[in-house]
Amino acid sequence: MAGNTFGQLFRISTFGESHGVAIGVILDGCPAQLPIDLNFIQAELDKRKPGQSKITTQRKESDMVQILSGTFEGKSTGTPIAMLIPNEDQRSKDYSHNTDVYRPSHADYTYDAKYGIRDYRGGGRSSARETAARVAAGAIAKLLLKHHGIEIFAHVSSVGKIQAPNLVGDNIEELLATREQNIVRCADPATANQMIEFIDGIRKDGDTVGGKINCIVKNCPVGLGEPVFDKLHADLGKAMLSINAVHGFEYGSGFAGSEMTGSVHNDVFLANEEGNPKTLTNFSGGIQGGISNGMEINFTVAFKPVATIMHNQQTINAAGEAAEIKGKGRHDPCVVPRAVVIVEAMAALVLADHLLRNKTSRL
Amino acid sequence: MAGNTFGQLFRISTFGESHGVAIGVILDGCPAQLPIDLNFIQAELDKRKPGQSKITTQRKESDMVQILSGTFEGKSTGTPIAMLIPNEDQRSKDYSHNTDVYRPSHADYTYDAKYGIRDYRGGGRSSARETAARVAAGAIAKLLLKHHGIEIFAHVSSVGKIQAPNLVGDNIEELLATREQNIVRCADPATANQMIEFIDGIRKDGDTVGGKINCIVKNCPVGLGEPVFDKLHADLGKAMLSINAVHGFEYGSGFAGSEMTGSVHNDVFLANEEGNPKTLTNFSGGIQGGISNGMEINFTVAFKPVATIMHNQQTINAAGEAAEIKGKGRHDPCVVPRAVVIVEAMAALVLADHLLRNKTSRL
Amino acid sequence: MAGNTFGQLFRISTFGESHGVAIGVILDGCPAQLPIDLNFIQAELDKRKPGQSKITTQRKESDMVQILSGTFEGKSTGTPIAMLIPNEDQRSKDYSHNTDVYRPSHADYTYDAKYGIRDYRGGGRSSARETAARVAAGAIAKLLLKHHGIEIFAHVSSVGKIQAPNLVGDNIEELLATREQNIVRCADPATANQMIEFIDGIRKDGDTVGGKINCIVKNCPVGLGEPVFDKLHADLGKAMLSINAVHGFEYGSGFAGSEMTGSVHNDVFLANEEGNPKTLTNFSGGIQGGISNGMEINFTVAFKPVATIMHNQQTINAAGEAAEIKGKGRHDPCVVPRAVVIVEAMAALVLADHLLRNKTSRL
Amino acid sequence: MAGNTFGQLFRISTFGESHGVAIGVILDGCPAQLPIDLNFIQAELDKRKPGQSKITTQRKESDMVQILSGTFEGKSTGTPIAMLIPNEDQRSKDYSHNTDVYRPSHADYTYDAKYGIRDYRGGGRSSARETAARVAAGAIAKLLLKHHGIEIFAHVSSVGKIQAPNLVGDNIEELLATREQNIVRCADPATANQMIEFIDGIRKDGDTVGGKINCIVKNCPVGLGEPVFDKLHADLGKAMLSINAVHGFEYGSGFAGSEMTGSVHNDVFLANEEGNPKTLTNFSGGIQGGISNGMEINFTVAFKPVATIMHNQQTINAAGEAAEIKGKGRHDPCVVPRAVVIVEAMAALVLADHLLRNKTSRL
Repeated sequence: MAGNTFGQLFRISTFGESHGVAIGVILDGCPAQLPIDLNFIQAELDKRKPGQSKITTQRKESDMVQILSGTFEGKSTGTPIAMLIPNEDQRSKDYSHNTDVYRPSHADYTYDAKYGIRDYRGGGRSSARETAARVAAGAIAKLLLKHHGIEIFAHVSSVGKIQAPNLVGDNIEELLATREQNIVRCADPATANQMIEFIDGIRKDGDTVGGKINCIVKNCPVGLGEPVFDKLHADLGKAMLSINAVHGFEYGSGFAGSEMTGSVHNDVFLANEEGNPKTLTNFSGGIQGGISNGMEINFTVAFKPVATIMHNQQTINAAGEAAEIKGKGRHDPCVVPRAVVIVEAMAALVLADHLLRNKTSRL
Repeated sequence: MAGNTFGQLFRISTFGESHGVAIGVILDGCPAQLPIDLNFIQAELDKRKPGQSKITTQRKESDMVQILSGTFEGKSTGTPIAMLIPNEDQRSKDYSHNTDVYRPSHADYTYDAKYGIRDYRGGGRSSARETAARVAAGAIAKLLLKHHGIEIFAHVSSVGKIQAPNLVGDNIEELLATREQNIVRCADPATANQMIEFIDGIRKDGDTVGGKINCIVKNCPVGLGEPVFDKLHADLGKAMLSINAVHGFEYGSGFAGSEMTGSVHNDVFLANEEGNPKTLTNFSGGIQGGISNGMEINFTVAFKPVATIMHNQQTINAAGEAAEIKGKGRHDPCVVPRAVVIVEAMAALVLADHLLRNKTSRL
Repeated sequence: MAGNTFGQLFRISTFGESHGVAIGVILDGCPAQLPIDLNFIQAELDKRKPGQSKITTQRKESDMVQILSGTFEGKSTGTPIAMLIPNEDQRSKDYSHNTDVYRPSHADYTYDAKYGIRDYRGGGRSSARETAARVAAGAIAKLLLKHHGIEIFAHVSSVGKIQAPNLVGDNIEELLATREQNIVRCADPATANQMIEFIDGIRKDGDTVGGKINCIVKNCPVGLGEPVFDKLHADLGKAMLSINAVHGFEYGSGFAGSEMTGSVHNDVFLANEEGNPKTLTNFSGGIQGGISNGMEINFTVAFKPVATIMHNQQTINAAGEAAEIKGKGRHDPCVVPRAVVIVEAMAALVLADHLLRNKTSRL
Repeated sequence: MAGNTFGQLFRISTFGESHGVAIGVILDGCPAQLPIDLNFIQAELDKRKPGQSKITTQRKESDMVQILSGTFEGKSTGTPIAMLIPNEDQRSKDYSHNTDVYRPSHADYTYDAKYGIRDYRGGGRSSARETAARVAAGAIAKLLLKHHGIEIFAHVSSVGKIQAPNLVGDNIEELLATREQNIVRCADPATANQMIEFIDGIRKDGDTVGGKINCIVKNCPVGLGEPVFDKLHADLGKAMLSINAVHGFEYGSGFAGSEMTGSVHNDVFLANEEGNPKTLTNFSGGIQGGISNGMEINFTVAFKPVATIMHNQQTINAAGEAAEIKGKGRHDPCVVPRAVVIVEAMAALVLADHLLRNKTSRL
């Protein structure tokens, strides 16, 4: 059973290969009457598109999105919203030297073994180019969430061993403005400079490096998440782990929480507050028993280094014989600056889905 | 949309509350003709059941499982396998003092807010008692996997800051034997003793502590995992994050991988090997592009400390007023020893599902 | 991929064989706070249970239902509602003569061919006994629908060639009362008498006969049904066709509509009415474009004659050799009197599901 | 929860409105390595396209299909196959007179009521134009089925009261050739002439008429269909009922079976045959207990008359006031000639799905 669909009620199906005609997405289940701002969708895609700075791949794709269906006079109609992003720079000759050999830590071998056929043009479906379709759909999810007052913000919290301080401030617009002032998309300007310098050095070495993205959700209503399997953090985790290169996910206290005692970790409720109860601490990361509790949702995603490096590497060919991969092509030295908006998009898709799912939890 | 079903082709639906009549599970999609060993299922449940040692809760449940349907003359018939585990020790009076107050870092508040109704008997559906149903179904998944030569092994790799060394040895039976010789279920006996002593101290303090479980899968065939959303590690991650108290998941290089460079992280293929290609290192954790590559699958799950502590805690009641929780009841000082078999069960369910899903990936 | 689950948001999974330990159902997705009337559920089951009159099978089953989970203090809690119906009269010796031969027009051969294993005890999973689980879940669906003012009524509209006149009257309670006054469950007393006499003659001949059930839905809100595949009538059709022995489904004008012209068939809207628009005729059967339009929903279901007859029949055994089936056992001469409540239950499940699905169709 | 996805393992999601930019489909789950014959897909679409004869609508659409993804060097790759059909003749001015009034027996009112928004351009999503996407995907399903030797054939079995004789002959190619020799697509030439003359008269009257399509499946393997809800005929029924204008479905003996006795209706097995057992009669329509038995599958679909007639009709506007619809536009006097290939496509999609689903029914 194929796996190109995500979400239950707010549901996307993506298609397209890195060097095919186009990539795209069908979004089914968007409630009718939502204003669909094409400029906003395009702006989101622009944050993910290649070639935007010296620390990203130089592949040129304008990533211009077209809406084919599902809107009428600027609003969603309740019918499927199909969006198309044509591929422009299909320079597959860059890949012609890789038709027979398996690139280390890529999906070349596993796709070939699974399907018995290999689309060697730039990774085919396994390329992160597919995530543009997620960003387009995620932008509509964000519009739905904004309509309900929910805001999402992610930024690069580490590159290699360079770690940003914890986020300060509650104003998402300000955080966004700060983040977009640097090309690495870290909300702390001083750390951002260190990261950029580090990535640029890595790039000059022809190497790559991993990093982490931290994401918060503000104003999430209480009650999102569906026990027992579709806990909110379980669906967020799956969403993040489905992004190319992600090797880890934690929320709230995360891995550090495994070292703590209950007497420290428990989030004590504060009395006499108006509105939803607040807790003194937030080791729960805004989610208890798999259901949002109204506090800020907080999670972190770990990305491995990009596998394509500009070094020659020993490998094997399809016959199992020794071969060599030459370092060529156009690739990112560090994936996290472009992945920030992907993390936000996937978070938005999960939250939009659970927002709708929660509509039927009680009479 | 409710979330009590897990899996696509090998699919379980669980039911039951901590202090209701019974808990149970329907497993739909188990291929016909699989020998169903009831003793094995019961033995798995015995590893999860309460009261098994001094470092687990003293609630008494025999957790005797009955098969209601789906087998005939000892084999699966292709029809749904329903299993029932009656609740015996429904000492709900232990909870009668908690009917109005929200226990910190429990799901009391979020369930109440979501559903507008609260089953205050021991956490109701949010109790980890529900995981017994997963273990029963997971046992059948293990039987299916064993039929295909696939083996799963998990153990407690850390408690608080006490970290076990990496697993040594390839023989799952030996690892299992070693693990079952200590009550904390760590495969390293020396570390196990440290952990037990530490947990026992925590227990005497009326406190709790978190920990981690590491899990490996041997002999996983190449090709399991469904791009792009249902990547094998994404489904494993969701499965693990759906277990009570889990706050983090990583596979292969995990969070540490975010600090590495591509030239170090890439898993170089080895030439001239027979059978499936092997890699020199395994930072990929046995999965590339979301598809198993035939190497050992390796992941780690982080558990927060149990929220129920034997201390009095400040909290609020349903009216938002200050209240106090008294430390009472029967609970685990550390959840990981009993959670080892839950981690294995969920891993088995994911792998069994993907084993079946992969049957249609090519003509 | 197994098929024992029905519905998207209001979703049931059934289990159990005719002569196993028990049959049952998990209902997931029932909104919290719905009063669950166990007596009503049992009364619905009593209408389906065997042995209720001279024109039904004489197998004795009390079909007493137990609720295992999902309710607290008489109300649904939002967690899965599991219901169990133990099998009592497992007289499988009645079937021991059929272990090797395939009964004509039964599922013996197809199950054996599909699964490679045959549970010969009374048809195993293929027995209509499974529908008791649907009736139990359907009863809860009816409770949810009643809460929203929606009412369902079905009755036997034909037996063999004996056809009842169209339903007269709008009062569901009166129709129900009339229907329950005769054992064939036809709302027209005169026709009922004819049908009973006819079935009784068929029974004495050791033969069986088919029939039809007509079903109406009153007060269905406008807007239920999800284009383009999950049209309301498409889901109703699938629901009905999934009932044992059903060979046909039509709604509104049905098969007769295929002979009509558009100028006659079109349902003209009436002006100047209060509330939802009404139409002059209702050839649309209350559904236009797959979406309910507020008029009465009207459909008919055709049942073939029961395959088990008291005659000896020529057949083959598993080796393909000629064999003979002896007419034995306890079976219904005509299935429709007991199937009325099954049709209602499946209709209720579809409507409850679409009622919930429609909650997210617009902002 | 939206309903634009059909199938479980061989799964399509369609999008697009009658007068939008384009319509299309994503097919997910097609096994890798299937040769994809674009000419065959186009030829199938040509049988559905408007303007093909004097008895179909004169709207001009070339319905040229493009494949955007999922194939490489002429074969399926296991990734989603996206297909696009641009809309050319978007003469929406034909509809501008209908922006405020509800056309009788159309979906205008129900879409407006459900979504609170109305795409008045030619019916928007409710137009049968959407079925072109099904035909494109169904063509690939047919290619998969042909690879397994399974063949599907449908033809117009009645128009109004003109009924064709039962199909004669077993050779699908011959049947197809005969059918395609007349514009009404009836496999009996004499009846075809009557039908064409009748439809042409109806057309000149500005009226429309209904009809029926009969479909058979040859060489269906034993074992397709998933008890208890996803019985093969239940999924076929839903598939057919999801086609625009369908009001009824029956298989095997169908509605006539409800008048028969079991002693007549039972399909007796024939002994001493090679291969799969055959039955003397086939009232079961090739399906027993919801599972194919290897005999010819046989079902019939009833279509109501097209709602758009060239007469003026009384109706109401969105305010509920009396209004008049003028007979204008370009529409089919009888939908069945173009629907034959839609019926085949939906049947192919169901069978392809169940073919894949059956891969995991036993070890």
